[in-house]
Amino acid sequence: MDFKTVIRTIPDYPKKGIMFRDITTLLGNARAFRRAVDELVQPYAGVRIDRVAGIEARGFILGGAVAHQLSTGFVPVRKKGKLPHTVIGEDYDLEYGKDRVEIHADAVKPGDHVLVVDDLIATGGTCLAAIKLLERAGAKVIGCSFVIDLPEIGGADKIRALGKNVQTLVAFEGH
Amino acid sequence: MDFKTVIRTIPDYPKKGIMFRDITTLLGNARAFRRAVDELVQPYAGVRIDRVAGIEARGFILGGAVAHQLSTGFVPVRKKGKLPHTVIGEDYDLEYGKDRVEIHADAVKPGDHVLVVDDLIATGGTCLAAIKLLERAGAKVIGCSFVIDLPEIGGADKIRALGKNVQTLVAFEGH
Repeated sequence: MDFKTVIRTIPDYPKKGIMFRDITTLLGNARAFRRAVDELVQPYAGVRIDRVAGIEARGFILGGAVAHQLSTGFVPVRKKGKLPHTVIGEDYDLEYGKDRVEIHADAVKPGDHVLVVDDLIATGGTCLAAIKLLERAGAKVIGCSFVIDLPEIGGADKIRALGKNVQTLVAFEGH
Repeated sequence: MDFKTVIRTIPDYPKKGIMFRDITTLLGNARAFRRAVDELVQPYAGVRIDRVAGIEARGFILGGAVAHQLSTGFVPVRKKGKLPHTVIGEDYDLEYGKDRVEIHADAVKPGDHVLVVDDLIATGGTCLAAIKLLERAGAKVIGCSFVIDLPEIGGADKIRALGKNVQTLVAFEGH
């Protein structure tokens, strides 16, 4: 399936010069949503995955569906201050400033095999922070699955350089 | 399945006197997550559902899985200012002040049958706002499914009073 046909591009959002790739049109399309989930999990047929970690917020939608498809548990990787129990956190750099993701300290068990899911990979900053966090908690991140890749920014290559499998379904040029 | 055994209670969070019901322990448990999704969709076997609307943020995880299980599209009901295209919004009252939820104006088609999913129903304020929005956009909300009910607060009854089917999996006393 050509996912480009179901992803809406919004020029100059959130600021001038950015072509925003809006995945809500894909999610709202029953056939495209199911097909995307099937393709995101396709490399993991017969591979041990104990938990799927989804990155807030769009990664929750896809990650929830992927966890359901793989019959695993789901781990939310949340923005700072959103989780109610003891957390561990990891900072990452933004264009200007820093941000932070957190997981519950007991969200994974040592040795768990984890698949990370998000809608889009750009710089990879959030995903790399999520991998560090999950591995600090004792899990092994097996791979990362995204619907959209922006390959010119190079995030997917950074994750591959860690020896992780990276699955993406559609690539757009530019930032 | 007794979902109470897999939901963690955190006393005095986010403030003194509140018993916070932490669903992350249920989501992280593969068997409990799958069972919860099965029970959330159970009343809709053979019922026409075109889209599942999940309420940000925990409703995205469950709603993504429910949409996958029902083979429907997914509509995110988001907090104010998060959606990139033309939105419609609905305010609702909080204990102090107001909040607002939004959907894309084209997120549903007139006549769509929609199931709303969230993790917990308390006052029902967010869910009632989501129902109004979806119906303003021309959809028919068939029902609302939640894992946790706090029946003393009465939100589920308010939704039932609109003639909507409400499915909840576990009830906790108190607020």
